Amino acid sequence: MTTSQIDPVAHVAGFLREVWSAGNLEAVRKYVAERYTIHHDPGDPWNGKVLDRKGFAERVRLSRAPFPDQRFTLQESFLAANAVVITWLWAGTHLADLPGFAASGKSISTSGITIYYVADGLITGHWQITDRLGVLLQLRQP
Amino acid sequence: MTTSQIDPVAHVAGFLREVWSAGNLEAVRKYVAERYTIHHDPGDPWNGKVLDRKGFAERVRLSRAPFPDQRFTLQESFLAANAVVITWLWAGTHLADLPGFAASGKSISTSGITIYYVADGLITGHWQITDRLGVLLQLRQP
Repeated sequence: MTTSQIDPVAHVAGFLREVWSAGNLEAVRKYVAERYTIHHDPGDPWNGKVLDRKGFAERVRLSRAPFPDQRFTLQESFLAANAVVITWLWAGTHLADLPGFAASGKSISTSGITIYYVADGLITGHWQITDRLGVLLQLRQP
Repeated sequence: MTTSQIDPVAHVAGFLREVWSAGNLEAVRKYVAERYTIHHDPGDPWNGKVLDRKGFAERVRLSRAPFPDQRFTLQESFLAANAVVITWLWAGTHLADLPGFAASGKSISTSGITIYYVADGLITGHWQITDRLGVLLQLRQP
């Protein structure tokens, strides 16, 4: 089976599971195009940037570091002409420092929606909103 | 033309423009089903509730009150089998009090993604994430 025959929804689900939840950086090349554009992602340090696969893997590694057991749970997926839209829940344990918040061991959860642009069986970028205020409020709780 | 013949993307665009941007509460009945479910909308006071059209119009009125000139700008729309997904930017002037923030006259902007579920030419509910931390940070700026 070539990549172009893979169902785009299954492709995005596998990407979320293998790369973002399990942290398998070797799998990046299977899912992500050679140029990946972060079109819109408020609060993400890479917002607006174009990454190659090495840069993308580094983004995953650094993003996962404070919450090494993080898990995304896919809620719904919507297949459009050039994109897969997913709604998701997220949970992780705060095990390494974040700016302003020393590692706390707290269980943190949030949610988000991501538009993944897909072309030729690979993800070329995203437009995303996450409920980052929800995370901040949980980190601040005594 | 009956409602069921209207393009779902145009329907959602009209809803955003007439109801949410212009604040035309009379137009609610044209766009919204008799039962409207707020499936997921962190920070929204009506999160999880089911509203009739009167309740929906009240939600619009109360939500718009602090930012009476608010404008949504549609970025992209994605048509799926049972839903229309939109990415949007938002801007408004903070002209009435919010909890913890007296009316400031500040120009505030944010962005979001909304899944609008559409059936029989009417919107039956949504799943939404807005960048509410972005709003909070702007309100807090001196």
